[in-house]
Amino acid sequence: MLGGMNVKLIDQKLVAECLKMPRAIELMKSAYADLTEGNVDSPLRTALVNEGGTVLYKPAYGEGAGIFCVKVVSVFADNVNKGLPVTPGIIVVNSAETGMPLAILEAGYLTALRTGAATGIATKVMAPEDSKVGALFGTGGQSRHQLEAMLCARSFERIYVFSRQEANAIRFCQDNRDIAGDCELIANPDRKVLKECDVITTSTTSPTAVFSDEEISDRVHINAIGSLGAQRTEISAETLLRSDVVVDQRAACLAEAGEICLMRDAGLIDDDYCPVEIGELILGKQCLGERNKPTVFKSVGNAAQDLVCSAEIYRYALDQGLGVDAVL
Amino acid sequence: MLGGMNVKLIDQKLVAECLKMPRAIELMKSAYADLTEGNVDSPLRTALVNEGGTVLYKPAYGEGAGIFCVKVVSVFADNVNKGLPVTPGIIVVNSAETGMPLAILEAGYLTALRTGAATGIATKVMAPEDSKVGALFGTGGQSRHQLEAMLCARSFERIYVFSRQEANAIRFCQDNRDIAGDCELIANPDRKVLKECDVITTSTTSPTAVFSDEEISDRVHINAIGSLGAQRTEISAETLLRSDVVVDQRAACLAEAGEICLMRDAGLIDDDYCPVEIGELILGKQCLGERNKPTVFKSVGNAAQDLVCSAEIYRYALDQGLGVDAVL
Repeated sequence: MLGGMNVKLIDQKLVAECLKMPRAIELMKSAYADLTEGNVDSPLRTALVNEGGTVLYKPAYGEGAGIFCVKVVSVFADNVNKGLPVTPGIIVVNSAETGMPLAILEAGYLTALRTGAATGIATKVMAPEDSKVGALFGTGGQSRHQLEAMLCARSFERIYVFSRQEANAIRFCQDNRDIAGDCELIANPDRKVLKECDVITTSTTSPTAVFSDEEISDRVHINAIGSLGAQRTEISAETLLRSDVVVDQRAACLAEAGEICLMRDAGLIDDDYCPVEIGELILGKQCLGERNKPTVFKSVGNAAQDLVCSAEIYRYALDQGLGVDAVL
Repeated sequence: MLGGMNVKLIDQKLVAECLKMPRAIELMKSAYADLTEGNVDSPLRTALVNEGGTVLYKPAYGEGAGIFCVKVVSVFADNVNKGLPVTPGIIVVNSAETGMPLAILEAGYLTALRTGAATGIATKVMAPEDSKVGALFGTGGQSRHQLEAMLCARSFERIYVFSRQEANAIRFCQDNRDIAGDCELIANPDRKVLKECDVITTSTTSPTAVFSDEEISDRVHINAIGSLGAQRTEISAETLLRSDVVVDQRAACLAEAGEICLMRDAGLIDDDYCPVEIGELILGKQCLGERNKPTVFKSVGNAAQDLVCSAEIYRYALDQGLGVDAVL
């Protein structure tokens, strides 16, 4: 009975080494197409709650990925006061052929990377091809990857960085110059520059819209990836109502995205409100109309994203002989 | 952003070292009491399926345990032809205080141990105190722990071992003499000895009853822990209908235990059939009637069992400085 199972441990540093943003953006393209076509099984996550926080279990399987995976991610707000990550997580990978556990991956970096990559593919598919000017709201843990994804998707000349704390925006611009290349990063400019922006990405925890509808142009593309939960929105109803709204997964966004739920609660949209899925754009089943109004991509995140990234990282580590081989 | 999380790896051998059967039986007592009192949260498991098998995700949390855990266990029948375990599994342990991942445990040994321990506590609580003669049906991966648990619960003089393959019973008796002590293990005797048995434990994959109602005595206690699924039963309807039936968790057994589901399908029991939970016996909320009819304990297994065992094993390994400390 006593025997050993070999499991590869892939730490945060190795995750970062195995998967770079350009490839992650390609992976999101197939992940979203698979999601729309029903080729990936990502059932409702399970949540366990105590007085300190929540642990979420998010499993997924897709034939294309060739693995099963589950992300175990916690949300413990008070961790910030303990010097611990607020959302620590790991991913368990199992073989599609034998069900054997294959690998354990650190999940925090992967989550930030794939959330960036979602913005990357949405920007590629939805933003004006000649986009030159961008804006990024929020300078938290996700924002570096959001910036990197924008830079991968379009040739920006400058990106404005907004934070409620001016010092955070300044530091963020300094810290991320390494990935910006020729693109200028400008901290907390006058908000009237928002009118010039071709792309705006919001990655905040704001409960209410971070800009008003009057501040933006008619041709802007917006990526709204922050403000988790049905009671928080980063985008105003005015903007949403006049925009082409595209989501990562319809059922999930109708249930969980505050941008949509709050409009429905306020009676601003009907119960049959039906945003397009980005997978439908990728597959050519839907297309955007003429560019005379904003476009919005809203993502609440899906285990299908973790699935394709985990598969890629595991295969790469295996091929290159990387990672720590443990026995259980 | 790049930082490390410390996770303790506890392999099968160390699991076996950290938790022995007598203590596991004690833990089952509190696990079942907690389950009945609603002190443990073990939501419906999630299953992902492909053409080769199934991966099950079974999370649990209880304040008493002081951890969150999830068991990731696969069922791939063809693994037996590949020299791999048919039900490989691991358990991920997260801190109740911070949500941080704390440990990864091999789950196969733990599952067999806690399933044995379930039989152990049921035998302690339900079998005649003076039980001397036992029987064990099935000689598969779970059976050694079933035997050990029976031996912990009562002072058996002899235990009869039945297998469809005579050679398996003989080998099982040889292989398990080390834990039997003064108790004689007897392979495949004439089935008329079943009438003498005070305790019968069934740990098979049989689709139908492994003994008939005429073969057993009126004072026998039966532990039925095998034959997973609503379409398989180890115990005949005749026996079940005249017995005091006790289950690990009512809702789960009404939904998943073939012993009950097949009787309901056949119209032999009403929709309001309501077996006692073993937690109710442990807490003194219910008691068994006079011993003029058989008693049956039916278990389909619950994540609450994994939870208490994982907590104990993790704490023990931590206190003793055991296990491999990995960084993710």
